[in-house]
Amino acid sequence: MKLIIAIVQDQDASNLVEELTEEEFRITKLASTGGFLKSGNTTLLIGVEDESVEKVLDIIEHTCKTREITTSLLTVTMPGDTYIPYPLDVKVGGATIFILDVEKYIRL
Amino acid sequence: MKLIIAIVQDQDASNLVEELTEEEFRITKLASTGGFLKSGNTTLLIGVEDESVEKVLDIIEHTCKTREITTSLLTVTMPGDTYIPYPLDVKVGGATIFILDVEKYIRL
Amino acid sequence: MKLIIAIVQDQDASNLVEELTEEEFRITKLASTGGFLKSGNTTLLIGVEDESVEKVLDIIEHTCKTREITTSLLTVTMPGDTYIPYPLDVKVGGATIFILDVEKYIRL
Ligand code: NI
Ligand code: NI
Ligand code: NI
Repeated sequence: MKLIIAIVQDQDASNLVEELTEEEFRITKLASTGGFLKSGNTTLLIGVEDESVEKVLDIIEHTCKTREITTSLLTVTMPGDTYIPYPLDVKVGGATIFILDVEKYIRL
Repeated sequence: MKLIIAIVQDQDASNLVEELTEEEFRITKLASTGGFLKSGNTTLLIGVEDESVEKVLDIIEHTCKTREITTSLLTVTMPGDTYIPYPLDVKVGGATIFILDVEKYIRL
Repeated sequence: MKLIIAIVQDQDASNLVEELTEEEFRITKLASTGGFLKSGNTTLLIGVEDESVEKVLDIIEHTCKTREITTSLLTVTMPGDTYIPYPLDVKVGGATIFILDVEKYIRL
């Protein structure tokens, strides 16, 4: 048994929880902030059998991996006070994952 | 030294904390939600000497174990719009427990 | 790789986070309450290379160590209802630290 502690962006957390739950993994969500990832983040505790660790990592990877998105939120001021939306590539997502060995796992 | 991570139902958490505190165990409570247990839950971090693990598990078991209670919250609609309270057995409680080995424990 | 779980007083948390961040350590903050330390506390997860554990412990020690401060919040009632501020030594700070071995550490 392993305990996976995954710190992910808030915006990716619900997708991740949904996919893990569909695959019958059991998760608990802790409110967390800052540090590892700049914006609001969520810390998940996921208890898994040794042989399922890879599957969980795959799910975290395809739901949370750092990716570039093009946003046009930024505007550039032009003469005459016209604002022009400016395409900008920003990185979103990302995850920090710790895998710990569990000495004993009990459900009551 | 072991770190016990116990995820319990909100409704059982205060009893558990009280009993553990009476026995001089030291606990920290993390706000947590969903997943392992459907309704609101609380994650407790409990640091214990190896020889006290069993005692903590006993306390968690007798304060949090899954049990059936009979509730009459459910009502059944009868002809003429009468509502009849309907006895229903529901399961409450339960705990998910991870025991981790602590390499080093320090109090400052 | 080690995972340091540090439970510190709320009032010391921001100093600690600032110093750790200056040294490029990566932290996540969990909201936590009671137990280990009476007043409001913060639980930090700090992922560190084995060789940096001592440095992190040093930083926790000099930002959070239990220390005595003299407060004059307490007042003593004198005859004629005069209240006299009474110097009082109180202990503040303190930290509870668990160091866990990390089997695998991944950043995506
Ligand atoms: Ni998917
Ligand atoms: Ni009892
Ligand atoms: Ni300093």
